[in-house]
Amino acid sequence: MARGKLLYAQSGGVTAVINTTAAAVISTARAQGLKVYAARNGIIGALREDLIDTSKESAAAIRGLAHTPGGAFGSCRFKLKSLEADRRHYERLIEVLRAHDIRYLLYNGGNDSADTSLKVAEVSRQLGYELACIGVPKTVDNDLAVTDCCPGFGSVAKYTAVSVLEACLDVASMSESSTKVFVMEVMGRHAGWIAAAAGLAQREADDPPHLILFPEIAFDQTTFLSKVKATVDKVGWCTVVVSEGLRHADGRFVAEAGGKDAFGHSQLGGVGPAIAALVKDNLNIKVHWAVPDYLQRSARHLASQVDHDHAWAVGEKAVEYALAGQHGVMPVIQRSSSAPYRWKIVPAPLTKVANHEKKMPKGYIRRDGYGITAACREYLAPLIRGEASPPYGKDGLPAYVRLKNVAVARKLADYSLSDG
Amino acid sequence: MARGKLLYAQSGGVTAVINTTAAAVISTARAQGLKVYAARNGIIGALREDLIDTSKESAAAIRGLAHTPGGAFGSCRFKLKSLEADRRHYERLIEVLRAHDIRYLLYNGGNDSADTSLKVAEVSRQLGYELACIGVPKTVDNDLAVTDCCPGFGSVAKYTAVSVLEACLDVASMSESSTKVFVMEVMGRHAGWIAAAAGLAQREADDPPHLILFPEIAFDQTTFLSKVKATVDKVGWCTVVVSEGLRHADGRFVAEAGGKDAFGHSQLGGVGPAIAALVKDNLNIKVHWAVPDYLQRSARHLASQVDHDHAWAVGEKAVEYALAGQHGVMPVIQRSSSAPYRWKIVPAPLTKVANHEKKMPKGYIRRDGYGITAACREYLAPLIRGEASPPYGKDGLPAYVRLKNVAVARKLADYSLSDG
Repeated sequence: MARGKLLYAQSGGVTAVINTTAAAVISTARAQGLKVYAARNGIIGALREDLIDTSKESAAAIRGLAHTPGGAFGSCRFKLKSLEADRRHYERLIEVLRAHDIRYLLYNGGNDSADTSLKVAEVSRQLGYELACIGVPKTVDNDLAVTDCCPGFGSVAKYTAVSVLEACLDVASMSESSTKVFVMEVMGRHAGWIAAAAGLAQREADDPPHLILFPEIAFDQTTFLSKVKATVDKVGWCTVVVSEGLRHADGRFVAEAGGKDAFGHSQLGGVGPAIAALVKDNLNIKVHWAVPDYLQRSARHLASQVDHDHAWAVGEKAVEYALAGQHGVMPVIQRSSSAPYRWKIVPAPLTKVANHEKKMPKGYIRRDGYGITAACREYLAPLIRGEASPPYGKDGLPAYVRLKNVAVARKLADYSLSDG
Repeated sequence: MARGKLLYAQSGGVTAVINTTAAAVISTARAQGLKVYAARNGIIGALREDLIDTSKESAAAIRGLAHTPGGAFGSCRFKLKSLEADRRHYERLIEVLRAHDIRYLLYNGGNDSADTSLKVAEVSRQLGYELACIGVPKTVDNDLAVTDCCPGFGSVAKYTAVSVLEACLDVASMSESSTKVFVMEVMGRHAGWIAAAAGLAQREADDPPHLILFPEIAFDQTTFLSKVKATVDKVGWCTVVVSEGLRHADGRFVAEAGGKDAFGHSQLGGVGPAIAALVKDNLNIKVHWAVPDYLQRSARHLASQVDHDHAWAVGEKAVEYALAGQHGVMPVIQRSSSAPYRWKIVPAPLTKVANHEKKMPKGYIRRDGYGITAACREYLAPLIRGEASPPYGKDGLPAYVRLKNVAVARKLADYSLSDG
C-alpha cells in the first residue's frame, strides 16, 4: 500500500500547535513504515530541494515536538501564483518530488495553502506524476472554510480570554486612582474570531471586555467614545479589545504599519495604541494599551487541550487519507454537538476550502456591534477547554525541543526562486 | 498578646502574586485570632474610612485568593507627601485606625509605601497612638532596596523569559520569508531587571534575545542598528527586548506617552514600536513588535513557584513580626546561596528600605551593554523556577476568586482627599 515517501510542509503564520500536527504526521507515518521528509521553510524548501529527513529524529524528539510552538521545520510566506504565471515553480516542485520518490504531499496551512495544494495536484496530473495532495488545516485566524474551526485558533482564543481576564483584574484594582481604560489589540485581519474569543472572559454584564471592536463592523468613533465614557461612569473603568483589522466605513484600516507582506497584505499593527490615544485625547483619562502580537499565537504554555486534540487528529487523519488513496482533500473538524462538545474528522474536497474565507456569522456579533452573542459563546466555549501544558525543565522554562533537521542529499541542480 | 485589629493595604502597581501575600496575611492572622480589615483601594480607602471586613470571606475564598492576580481589595497610586505638606492626611489616618482599634498596619507596596509606612509610624508616635507599622515588599520592578528580590518580580521574569522563548520560535520559523526583527517592550522605568530576565531564555550564544536595551545604558542608535544588522546577517533574524525606560544620552526617554501619573512619573509606553520603526526605516526589513503591558504583571497562570513562596512568606512573617511587637520593619528576602537556592525571611528597618532604589549592579550588564552576564544569570535563575499554576475551571479559564469585600460600618464623618 505505502510506497514512496511523504513530504510535509508548513505554510504561513505558525501557531502554538502546528508542531502537534507535525508530530502526529510523523508518528502516524512511522507506524505505517512510511518515510517522512519535511520541507525546510515550507514550499521555499521544496522548490530549492532543501528537504529534511525526519527519520533522523528520535522518538523522544517527536514526542517533544508535539508540545513545542513555532514551526519546527520553518514555514514561509511565499505564495505560488496561478498556473499560468508560476508554471515554472509548479513543474520544479514535481521534479523535486519525483527525484526523491515522494508520493504524498501534506501541506499544512490556511487558505493560500489549500489553493496551492489544489494547483500542485493539477500539475502532477498533467505531468503524469502520481501524487496524493492532502491539505492540513492550520490558522490562528479561524477563517478557513468548511472546517468547524482551525487548529491553532483554540489556543490563541484561550490565550486571549485568559489574558483579558488577568489584565482586567489588574486594571480593576488600580482604576480608582490610575488607569481607567485598557485597550488590547489582537490579531485578525479580516475576521474577528480572536477578538470574539476575548468575550469568553465575560461572565456577568459589567465584566470585561466591555467593548470589542470587530473588523466586520465599520468603526464609528463617536458611538465608541460615548460607550467608553458610559462604561467608565458605570463600572469605574473600561476594557476594549480591538482587532488589528479594524476599518473605517470607507474601508481604510484604522492603523496601518505601512509595509506589505509577501502576499501583498498590508503589514498591520498599531490600532491598539491608536484607539488608546483617541480615548485619551477625547476623554482625558489615563489609558494603557497592550499588543501581544506573536506572543498570542506562540503561547504553547497556555494551549487548549481541545485545540491540541484537533491539531493531532488532523495530522493523523491526513496520513491515513493519503495512505487510503485519497487526494485533493483536507481533514476537517466537524462538530455534531456543542454541549456536550462532540466532534470528528471528515475529509473535505480542497476545492471547497481553497480561496474561501470564513467570516464571523452576523448572528455571532451583538446587534450594537460591540460584543458577542450567546450563539457565538456556544460556538467558542468548547474550543478553549482543557490545559495541554508542556512539561517544564528544572530551570522553570517549558521543555521545548530543537530538532536536528538533517538535510537530505540533493539530487538536482540549483534553482532560483526569482525569475531574473 | 494580640489586641486590636490588623489593617492590610495594597499600594502601587499590583503583581501576579500580591494576593498570595494578602492570603498569607489573612490566614496567619486568622490562625492567631486576629481580625483583619483591608483598605479598599489602598491608602485612599484608609483615609476615607472605606474598610473591608475580611472575616466575611470563607476559608475557600482566602485559599483561592492565593492564586488570583490583581489586587483583591483595590490598590492605588496616591502618594502621601511629607509630614509638613500632608499632615492632615496622616492625622486622619491615625483617627481612622483609632476609631476601629487597629493596632497593626501592614502596608504592601514598593519604595513609596515603605516611605509612607515610616511616616505613619512617626505620626502615630507623636500622637501617642500605639501602632505597629510593617512594610510588606511587592513590586514587579525588583527595585526595592535591602531585599534580595521582590515578590512579584519572579513571576514577571518568568512570563518574560517564556514569552521571548515562545515568540522567538515563531520568528525563527518565519524569518526566511517574513519578519526578521522582533521587538518586545517590557516594563521597568528606571531599572532593567525585567529586561534582564528575558536573557534567561538564552541558552547558546546565538539564541534570543540577541539584544537587550536597558534603562541603565544610554541608547546609541548607530551601534544598535549595526548590531541588529550583524545579527540578522549571522543568525537570519534578531530579537530585541527593550525596557520602557530606555533613555537617550541626554536623559530623555526614547518614547514618552505624554501623560503623568499621580506620582508625577511620565506615563510611558511606545518605545517598542519606536525601536521597531527605527529598524524598519533604517534597515528596510520586516519588523514586528509586542508590548504585553499589564499582561506581564498579571500573568498568574504562569507564576513562578519560588515567587509564590516568597510572596506567601513575607505575608506570613509580616503578621508574625507585628504580633511579636516589631514595628518600622519589613520582612525581606535574604539569599544565602544561589546553587542550590537557599533563602530566608529576615526583618529589615524601613529606614533602610524607604526611598532607595535598587539598580542593576554594573556587573550584571554585559560590557557591550546589550546583554546580561553570568553573575546576573546566577542571580535571576532561581527566581523563575517552579510552576505555581492556578486551578482551572471546566470552562478552560483559571478559577480566580471574587471576594465579597463587605464594608465595615463607618464611625467617622466624611473626609475629602483634596484640600479645596
